[in-house]
Amino acid sequence: MKITRVRAILTAPDGIALVVVKVETDQDGLYGLGCATFTQRATVVAKAVEDYLDPLLQGRDPANIEDLWHLMYVNSYWRNSGVLNNAISGVDMALWDIKGKVANMPVYDLLGGKCREAAMVYRHADGRDPKEVLDNVLKYQADGALAVRCQMGGYGGRVKDITKRNARPSRKAPQATHRGKGPERADSAFPGAYYDPDAYARSIPPLFEYVRSKIGDSLFLLHDIHERLAPIDAIRMAKALEPYRLFFLEDPLAPDQIEWFRRLRDQSATPIAMGELHNNPLEWRALIAEQLIDFIRTHISQIGGLTPARKQAALAESFGVRTAWHGPGDVSPVGHAANLHLDLACHNFGIQEVIFFGEALKEVFPGTPELRDGYLWPNSKPGLGIDLDEKKAARYPITVNVIDWTQSRWPDGTLWTP
Amino acid sequence: MKITRVRAILTAPDGIALVVVKVETDQDGLYGLGCATFTQRATVVAKAVEDYLDPLLQGRDPANIEDLWHLMYVNSYWRNSGVLNNAISGVDMALWDIKGKVANMPVYDLLGGKCREAAMVYRHADGRDPKEVLDNVLKYQADGALAVRCQMGGYGGRVKDITKRNARPSRKAPQATHRGKGPERADSAFPGAYYDPDAYARSIPPLFEYVRSKIGDSLFLLHDIHERLAPIDAIRMAKALEPYRLFFLEDPLAPDQIEWFRRLRDQSATPIAMGELHNNPLEWRALIAEQLIDFIRTHISQIGGLTPARKQAALAESFGVRTAWHGPGDVSPVGHAANLHLDLACHNFGIQEVIFFGEALKEVFPGTPELRDGYLWPNSKPGLGIDLDEKKAARYPITVNVIDWTQSRWPDGTLWTP
Amino acid sequence: MKITRVRAILTAPDGIALVVVKVETDQDGLYGLGCATFTQRATVVAKAVEDYLDPLLQGRDPANIEDLWHLMYVNSYWRNSGVLNNAISGVDMALWDIKGKVANMPVYDLLGGKCREAAMVYRHADGRDPKEVLDNVLKYQADGALAVRCQMGGYGGRVKDITKRNARPSRKAPQATHRGKGPERADSAFPGAYYDPDAYARSIPPLFEYVRSKIGDSLFLLHDIHERLAPIDAIRMAKALEPYRLFFLEDPLAPDQIEWFRRLRDQSATPIAMGELHNNPLEWRALIAEQLIDFIRTHISQIGGLTPARKQAALAESFGVRTAWHGPGDVSPVGHAANLHLDLACHNFGIQEVIFFGEALKEVFPGTPELRDGYLWPNSKPGLGIDLDEKKAARYPITVNVIDWTQSRWPDGTLWTP
Amino acid sequence: MKITRVRAILTAPDGIALVVVKVETDQDGLYGLGCATFTQRATVVAKAVEDYLDPLLQGRDPANIEDLWHLMYVNSYWRNSGVLNNAISGVDMALWDIKGKVANMPVYDLLGGKCREAAMVYRHADGRDPKEVLDNVLKYQADGALAVRCQMGGYGGRVKDITKRNARPSRKAPQATHRGKGPERADSAFPGAYYDPDAYARSIPPLFEYVRSKIGDSLFLLHDIHERLAPIDAIRMAKALEPYRLFFLEDPLAPDQIEWFRRLRDQSATPIAMGELHNNPLEWRALIAEQLIDFIRTHISQIGGLTPARKQAALAESFGVRTAWHGPGDVSPVGHAANLHLDLACHNFGIQEVIFFGEALKEVFPGTPELRDGYLWPNSKPGLGIDLDEKKAARYPITVNVIDWTQSRWPDGTLWTP
Repeated sequence: MKITRVRAILTAPDGIALVVVKVETDQDGLYGLGCATFTQRATVVAKAVEDYLDPLLQGRDPANIEDLWHLMYVNSYWRNSGVLNNAISGVDMALWDIKGKVANMPVYDLLGGKCREAAMVYRHADGRDPKEVLDNVLKYQADGALAVRCQMGGYGGRVKDITKRNARPSRKAPQATHRGKGPERADSAFPGAYYDPDAYARSIPPLFEYVRSKIGDSLFLLHDIHERLAPIDAIRMAKALEPYRLFFLEDPLAPDQIEWFRRLRDQSATPIAMGELHNNPLEWRALIAEQLIDFIRTHISQIGGLTPARKQAALAESFGVRTAWHGPGDVSPVGHAANLHLDLACHNFGIQEVIFFGEALKEVFPGTPELRDGYLWPNSKPGLGIDLDEKKAARYPITVNVIDWTQSRWPDGTLWTP
Repeated sequence: MKITRVRAILTAPDGIALVVVKVETDQDGLYGLGCATFTQRATVVAKAVEDYLDPLLQGRDPANIEDLWHLMYVNSYWRNSGVLNNAISGVDMALWDIKGKVANMPVYDLLGGKCREAAMVYRHADGRDPKEVLDNVLKYQADGALAVRCQMGGYGGRVKDITKRNARPSRKAPQATHRGKGPERADSAFPGAYYDPDAYARSIPPLFEYVRSKIGDSLFLLHDIHERLAPIDAIRMAKALEPYRLFFLEDPLAPDQIEWFRRLRDQSATPIAMGELHNNPLEWRALIAEQLIDFIRTHISQIGGLTPARKQAALAESFGVRTAWHGPGDVSPVGHAANLHLDLACHNFGIQEVIFFGEALKEVFPGTPELRDGYLWPNSKPGLGIDLDEKKAARYPITVNVIDWTQSRWPDGTLWTP
Repeated sequence: MKITRVRAILTAPDGIALVVVKVETDQDGLYGLGCATFTQRATVVAKAVEDYLDPLLQGRDPANIEDLWHLMYVNSYWRNSGVLNNAISGVDMALWDIKGKVANMPVYDLLGGKCREAAMVYRHADGRDPKEVLDNVLKYQADGALAVRCQMGGYGGRVKDITKRNARPSRKAPQATHRGKGPERADSAFPGAYYDPDAYARSIPPLFEYVRSKIGDSLFLLHDIHERLAPIDAIRMAKALEPYRLFFLEDPLAPDQIEWFRRLRDQSATPIAMGELHNNPLEWRALIAEQLIDFIRTHISQIGGLTPARKQAALAESFGVRTAWHGPGDVSPVGHAANLHLDLACHNFGIQEVIFFGEALKEVFPGTPELRDGYLWPNSKPGLGIDLDEKKAARYPITVNVIDWTQSRWPDGTLWTP
Repeated sequence: MKITRVRAILTAPDGIALVVVKVETDQDGLYGLGCATFTQRATVVAKAVEDYLDPLLQGRDPANIEDLWHLMYVNSYWRNSGVLNNAISGVDMALWDIKGKVANMPVYDLLGGKCREAAMVYRHADGRDPKEVLDNVLKYQADGALAVRCQMGGYGGRVKDITKRNARPSRKAPQATHRGKGPERADSAFPGAYYDPDAYARSIPPLFEYVRSKIGDSLFLLHDIHERLAPIDAIRMAKALEPYRLFFLEDPLAPDQIEWFRRLRDQSATPIAMGELHNNPLEWRALIAEQLIDFIRTHISQIGGLTPARKQAALAESFGVRTAWHGPGDVSPVGHAANLHLDLACHNFGIQEVIFFGEALKEVFPGTPELRDGYLWPNSKPGLGIDLDEKKAARYPITVNVIDWTQSRWPDGTLWTP
């Protein structure tokens, strides 16, 4: 069997730009799908697929996934790059999809079979104040959720847009008490979405105090710092949150601040999840090997697909670390399916992030995994068990624009960069 | 003197399969007994003794214990194995028993003499709720116990059997509130004894809060996590239990997760005991040399007998660690006697786990140590001071069956493996 | 599909006791084969399979390999044991064999596809003196070998049997100059196969000096210390061998002497292979994670089969370590096939140990991989691609006896134990 | 002042695809140029510039380089990516160019002024055998060179193309003696440019022995392993090359194998240069902070431009490490100019890699630094002192094709990936 063509398909059924790769073969009707989504740079990923991976792969045998992965990885000489890893991921998942179809087996069966029937998920509750967050938590609980992530007012607790350009606020947020009247002005040389890290840090322990006082231990609760704090403030938050028994605290520190994680571990027993920003093995190897985290939370498309992800899971298993693959709206349903297949096959699965799959998404992606009773359930079709209706996908073109929420600034105008 | 025969004797006076090795000599009536119990694989140990150790040892001089230990250890080329270590242990203890009989001295005298009259022990109190646990604690106290281990509802706090196969629940357990309606179903592809590690983790600090509030400091209290938690949850429990001044917290982490013990020690001053699952020097060497534990709690039969155990005790003494040899029902009275001889002779003795010796056990094993006033007392007969009545032993044949409680699963169906 | 029976088959076509496990299913004619060979304790492994794994597995779905592996691993409570790991390995490989047959794919395809056409192997040249070793090296080279391991006179260079019992010398060896007339006597209390570690250590650098002077760089050369030296003498040998550019130096230190490997690495750049004696993750984890070795050389059956081996390979890949799976005569052809499937599918393959497959072996095991031109070549049949003719196997019963060469002693009578 | 437009310009005057970014302002005729070259993925970088950085930057003040760098860095959320870093670099260098033009100062003056008049460079001598390499070395010496890198037959010493596809060998290479008749065949499933790492490793020490014997110490000599060896073989080469007093040995190990550098440092005092493959701070931080290398050799465009490069130089100075910025043909003359400005301004400058600038290059890029007497000399124009003639650039369109030499394979077919 030979690969005849590799294409990138851009679609945004939910408004978020998704990148899916389709690998076509010379066997009638046999193809595979993979998720290559890097939503903030969607067209760049597509360019990498079409200009470089398509000619590289045409004529190759799709069975040799391991070899092809290394071929793609090293072909650009420079490697471990966001954009290029996403492109590789698209192909890699598609090759596993093809292999499953050839074997007439779901991918989880190829990977060693199921360790569990379904994957426990967590949902995202947001709100402008603790009461609103609680209301959302309770809605999810009524819907069967077992675990809920609680955020108040977006990452950092406050997002206010101060410029004409980039004017759409990315998240509704309360006007948290702001200290001083510093440089934050409409005519600032530093436009952005301002927030106050100290106000944020102070607001979160009371939020959990409140929610726990209302729901007791009836749910697992989570929180995502999203690298919005200076390192020592993240450590203080991890410590302050200990009484509320989080399932995990996510992304407390920048992805390259390995040494700060050691400091965090000296201070707190709050479980830590990290990985969504990783695209280089050095970002996760020591975190796992030194047991500095409890959950590896990689965006599988960012590290290059199922092939490196299952090795990462094995590495994590060796050191007593569990998986919690990244799974928000900037993962395509193909990517969610890949997450789920790993969740089922890896013994050291921890929890799965997931979104509500809207009708548009499900129409464009028939076979999208089903969310029910707090778990994500697979179908039993061969391969990844998911398809892409290209005609319907074309109805939802992506828009290329500059991301707003990644222009966050502190009260003095400093651009937030973890 | 020469060894003429080495035999394995299987018996289950208490319902638990025990393996005892008898080493016979060419001196009239002179033989030794050793414990080789690995109850979950009893017949396999017996096979190793009969097929391999018997021919290896026939004709050898039983005086050279150290040499014979190394001979047995390396004869199989692969070593540090549960089954094979148990077989070696059976011979090794029996050789010490013979040596004591030849010298007309108890083994503790050969080992350097007594440091104390008797060994403080701890007992096991269980219960479905804190009240029931307390009742059992008080019964032990009334009986003279100085130290009691408190568990609620078996390891992990809840065991529910969901399948036709393997249907006998191995331990009584309360039906702890279970979260969600996930994959746990009677027709699951994953039969097992389900429990909820989070429910367990939350239940234990209140248990000790309650018991301490009733008994004050009148007893040493202990708890055994039995590796039933994810590492970070074990650390949280160690931290949460600090106010209750445990004598020790046992088996918080998997035997090969040395590095996690470092994390645990960063966070908590709760004394830690570990070792029952060890059968490889790497499992205990760093724990002791880095002072990551306070009590070494090896199952002596699993590490190969008295010869390695007394060296382990010496290593522990060197680093300020005390002994607490494994001593539940899956140790034969011969093994309990061996524990006790070490307890008396080693300066760094800490505490001794023990069971109530029922009538059947005492009849089959005349000379079983006596439990009285919270201590275990030796007799002063030569050797290990214990015998085996083979006729009576034969009345209690073992049954070979698949172990139930080692098929425990988490709510999503994941098989528990530390 | 359900497992209906699990059996152990013992056979010795080449005189070496092999243990093969057959997993039968309720699908007509569908079964799998796995290697469970621990030749020094063959009947003990078989007992573990028949008494414990067979009842544990009957009725289970063979597709869920990962779950069943953990089930078997933890079912005995004590784990990481030679005998029990071999039994698990037999089942585990058989389940992969079944999965490949169901998928109609070779196992290497299930594991991610081929990275190479065939696996480079090394052969074993022995001899009483350098000239005889060279002659054997040249024979292998003429036969197409690319890599040859050179030993002189058995492990340790000298093996002499001094007792009536255990009288068959395991290997022909010269009477190396022996220092003094110490305790080595025919009537010694310490019967064994005496050798002189210092004579051995001094003899090896000249051997390689000689062989390299004759063959230049036309072959890769290897050597196996087989733990026959005290640690510092192994370090001296590694240093002394540097000029001869070994492909690797094998088993320089005892499997649990992790810290000594650090000392070795401080001193020498000779590539190091280790792993054949490993059966506990602690034996390999730090060696790999600290890059103390260059090749992981595990006996796959000893660590529990393909499931842990492919994770070990992933761990090694993460740290820049290559594989060199153990593959001498005490691996069955089923095990050699499993080695080869991993060799093809793992990117970080290094080299493969292999034996000459005699006619009896090939008759009993149709589908045995083919050794040609210095490489081992797979067939393309589904599963492991190998079968077992039970009738022919029965013609070669094993003999249970005490192993000779594991009773080696130093000149003063000290039993060699690494 | 405001940025009005950001454009990517692709050109290949020497046949190598270069990417240059032009930042235009609202000040008449004021613009800046920066190098964004990632030649293996040139169009992908251009796409990132045009689709994402252009809209992000329009309207911003070009004076605030530090703020804009962080804005670009974090705007894509995922960061430290080859492609995206190159795009950022193009803008970043252009902003420094603008700032110099505004100040009417060369960039080196903005950076603190010159420490030296010119930058010592090294040249690349190649050849099929030691004699041919020596001839080329002598030519460079006659031309004034003070330092020469010596390679024999391309990276890895041998490149042989075995397939119809991808048939153009990217580098001339001798047909080094190849071992065996393994899987390397014209009809292989693994097309590529085969080489033998062992033949390469053995060939280099004699090369330097030969060259040194002819030229004595009249030149600095360098060598680039280019990650073509397994780690331990790289260590052996570093050790074997010690007698020849290299100026440095480059890229001995994969960029993410930090720990192996520790092993290398245990064994050899050969100076080490590393960095060309880096695009993540974790790849260089420990190497510098632990003094595992002697020269940091980053490709400035890959790490995001002058802004991070001058911080990297400061970090290196802090730990006694010198700079040796990457500067071969896949750096545009704009990039070479940026290298040179840093070389002049950083106290801890070591050496500069450079190419011969052909006529086409100099025509397209007026102001290209001048190579003379073994040094690279700046001009004294404001900014980077270099321009781009867009009309002439358009005469040299790039070709998008699959890279050949990154498909190198070992004799058994394994794809080379460090």
